[in-house]
Amino acid sequence: MRHHDRPEESNGNNLRARRVALDTHDQLVVITRRDSPVCRSEGFSAHARVRLQTGDRRIIATLYQIDSELLALDEIALSESAWERLQVNEGDLVHIAHPQPLDSLGLVRGRIYGKSLGREEMHQIIADISAGRYADIHLSMFLTVMAARVPDDDELIHLTEAMINAGDRLRWPRDIIADKHSVGGLPGNRTTPLVVAMVTACGLWMPKTSSRAITSPAGTADTMETLAPVDLDLDQMRAVIEKEGGCVAWGGAVRLSPVDDMLIRVARLMDLDAEGQMVASVLSKKVAAGATHLVLDIPVGPTAKVRSSEEAEELSRRLHSVAEAFDLKLRILITDGSEPVGRGIGPALEARDLLAVLRNDADQPADLRRRAVRLAGALLELTGTAEQGCGEEMAESTLTDGRAWTKFQAICAAQGGLREPPLAARRHEMAASDAGEIVSIDNRRLARVAKLAGAPGAAAAGLEIHVKLGDHVDAGKVLYTIHAETAGELNYAREFAETNGIIKIA
Amino acid sequence: MRHHDRPEESNGNNLRARRVALDTHDQLVVITRRDSPVCRSEGFSAHARVRLQTGDRRIIATLYQIDSELLALDEIALSESAWERLQVNEGDLVHIAHPQPLDSLGLVRGRIYGKSLGREEMHQIIADISAGRYADIHLSMFLTVMAARVPDDDELIHLTEAMINAGDRLRWPRDIIADKHSVGGLPGNRTTPLVVAMVTACGLWMPKTSSRAITSPAGTADTMETLAPVDLDLDQMRAVIEKEGGCVAWGGAVRLSPVDDMLIRVARLMDLDAEGQMVASVLSKKVAAGATHLVLDIPVGPTAKVRSSEEAEELSRRLHSVAEAFDLKLRILITDGSEPVGRGIGPALEARDLLAVLRNDADQPADLRRRAVRLAGALLELTGTAEQGCGEEMAESTLTDGRAWTKFQAICAAQGGLREPPLAARRHEMAASDAGEIVSIDNRRLARVAKLAGAPGAAAAGLEIHVKLGDHVDAGKVLYTIHAETAGELNYAREFAETNGIIKIA
Repeated sequence: MRHHDRPEESNGNNLRARRVALDTHDQLVVITRRDSPVCRSEGFSAHARVRLQTGDRRIIATLYQIDSELLALDEIALSESAWERLQVNEGDLVHIAHPQPLDSLGLVRGRIYGKSLGREEMHQIIADISAGRYADIHLSMFLTVMAARVPDDDELIHLTEAMINAGDRLRWPRDIIADKHSVGGLPGNRTTPLVVAMVTACGLWMPKTSSRAITSPAGTADTMETLAPVDLDLDQMRAVIEKEGGCVAWGGAVRLSPVDDMLIRVARLMDLDAEGQMVASVLSKKVAAGATHLVLDIPVGPTAKVRSSEEAEELSRRLHSVAEAFDLKLRILITDGSEPVGRGIGPALEARDLLAVLRNDADQPADLRRRAVRLAGALLELTGTAEQGCGEEMAESTLTDGRAWTKFQAICAAQGGLREPPLAARRHEMAASDAGEIVSIDNRRLARVAKLAGAPGAAAAGLEIHVKLGDHVDAGKVLYTIHAETAGELNYAREFAETNGIIKIA
Repeated sequence: MRHHDRPEESNGNNLRARRVALDTHDQLVVITRRDSPVCRSEGFSAHARVRLQTGDRRIIATLYQIDSELLALDEIALSESAWERLQVNEGDLVHIAHPQPLDSLGLVRGRIYGKSLGREEMHQIIADISAGRYADIHLSMFLTVMAARVPDDDELIHLTEAMINAGDRLRWPRDIIADKHSVGGLPGNRTTPLVVAMVTACGLWMPKTSSRAITSPAGTADTMETLAPVDLDLDQMRAVIEKEGGCVAWGGAVRLSPVDDMLIRVARLMDLDAEGQMVASVLSKKVAAGATHLVLDIPVGPTAKVRSSEEAEELSRRLHSVAEAFDLKLRILITDGSEPVGRGIGPALEARDLLAVLRNDADQPADLRRRAVRLAGALLELTGTAEQGCGEEMAESTLTDGRAWTKFQAICAAQGGLREPPLAARRHEMAASDAGEIVSIDNRRLARVAKLAGAPGAAAAGLEIHVKLGDHVDAGKVLYTIHAETAGELNYAREFAETNGIIKIA
């Protein structure tokens, strides 16, 4: 018997790509005929992990098999996620093979049994995750053990560093780069564009990339997009920053800590918020974005991500410890997280709240303005732009005298032009059936109403809340207004709202 | 606003079932049109978990969405696994809804953060797993934390009890019910039918249910099926036992600790063998099967499941502690796990090894006989059938004087008739290219050759090994023979064998 060193793969492993418009969200799925020669020769069975390659692009996907003529023997159907990652065209040849052994999973198992992870080991795990080699159950395994055996400061620093290295890292020609972050989104807490306008009006640089909504009715990028283009590539973003010192762009064009996005997706399905992971998540994104000075808002409340001040204190300690390792100056504000912020829920409706604050409208949402001023003030002090104790005053003045509004218009112009947020074609008012005091607002269900109304896909869709906790209302008082673009969506949202007690009056 | 207590579901959530022959292994997957009214009104997105109901059968499945005319707006395509679990017919109406909140996941999260699980809590988790409410990432979360925070004896007893209660539990009209188990399959270690024949020949009752292969080239049920029917329902099994005292049936007709199968599937994908889970797995199956006396074989070797004698000692301690709680008498044999057992790999070829031992053939595999005698002897002593120290002699005598062979024939007759294992139509001999000593045998790749040749689907397929570690061979000596039913399969297996160094000669 001869011992060749040839790889196990043969050249018969090429299949023709077929697009079937199958949406599996971010899971990478491919389908072949069960009786295809390649499945039989390679011994692939359903639910196996397989490696696909075309050109120099590779993915690891989950294989399903079909016993029907819907596919030819030499075809492979790809989910939309796999189609996009591989960038194939209909009929392109795709090479299918067994994935290489996942050695770093042994390190995760080692940590399960009590070993800690050194720098090289953590980098190896994160590199494999980044390359898409971990299935969801492996990501769950990693997240669970990092939550069950809390990482020490060294491990947390290795993890953060590895996550930074797995993506792009931006550099800016300035010594001070400001950034802000809020832990655990309160509905409507859309302070970012306000903070950017205020601090850049004071001369700071703040190149902000934001995300689109994943499960919520609006992300900061969705909201900003109703005011100006946000889909900037890195060169465009740099041009805006050079000119205006700030931007609010969608982060999709740059890959900042992409492993964080992969872990967050699975952690959400597990409903697991582990402190260590949160620290690495926030700080890896900020360091990768080139931030040097960061203000962090931790809202504390019974339905917020952080529920007690003890929890907030411990989280702060770890954030400071890791931030220091990356020479990131950090100030943390622990704020009230018991109530939603502002009035609108949905991209355009939240944008209208922002404009009201920037334009100093008489009926602007005071709570939104207050939070934004606090964050901007802290950032001005942390960067030495304002004296200690004078930051909020400096921030406030940019709103009062219109400099923040002027700066915001200039940033929007540089991003491609300021525009007025759209107004929805249809509205429905939800009124109180009885008089009394507002005793509870179900934020989760309010968000659901906004999504059924079409947000964030329909930018103008969502809702406006007209009451706050503790308000006294008469019967017939309008509690909130649903906005939608189509009669069908308005009806879906309305039916759901009518059969579910969202705002309670006692 | 009125507050109805109506559930969120409406009656428009019924879709017509469509079978598409999609094999997703055990993952439950359904596909709808993305633009179907039910997805829009319920806010289902791709990769959501959904609850399906028809009649009184319910499953929780993963939803994918498709943008194409392959499905109608009111259709739902089901994977084969979902189709079987729901037992629907083409066009049946299936009700789709959001799954109920998974409260027990909070208990798993609590354990991640350091709480231990009480009896009720463990039962709640296992009941939810049993009902299919846990997605794979949730099972991974549970398995990981049970491995990372080793359960104490109480928790392990709760876990074992909950797993027993989640399935069927057999009762037999005898005080002593014998059973055996081997931890971590050595290739070819097919001792079960031999042990059953020997101990029932001595008057014990041993109602054995076995599994089919999942990833290996043969399970005990596959091997036994080449000798007699194994697909017995519980009544048929009871009739065989009443008559002969023993059987070797496929376990598919009874649901013994079904949660164990669900956990094992995911643990295998994670490549995680946690001691606690192994204890609950083995003992829940045996107690559910009605066993009172169990002999457990723990092979120890560098490529076996248990790798050191320290590990085997600790595992033994835990097994004894949990077995005692269920009044199960246990004897553990720690055996040599460094080499495969017998000659054949594949259902019929392994059956031929069994027949050679039972018939006292001159060229019977001595290692297989030796192992079976040891296990049967221990079981005879443990049950008080033999004096201490005399069990092996008693077991051996049933082979020597033909009583075991007579009993085995009687059991096969009672199961539906003894038959001769099939012989494959085609064979190919793999010969040594050089002279020298056999220094290594790659068991994993040998198993792959057997599978490519068609095992276990083609019962006669597989291979026969003609050498052992340490043997000296001349060039041209046949190392192993591949058996296959078709020329194509023989070629697949042969090509793989020829390009991969499976048996090393130095």
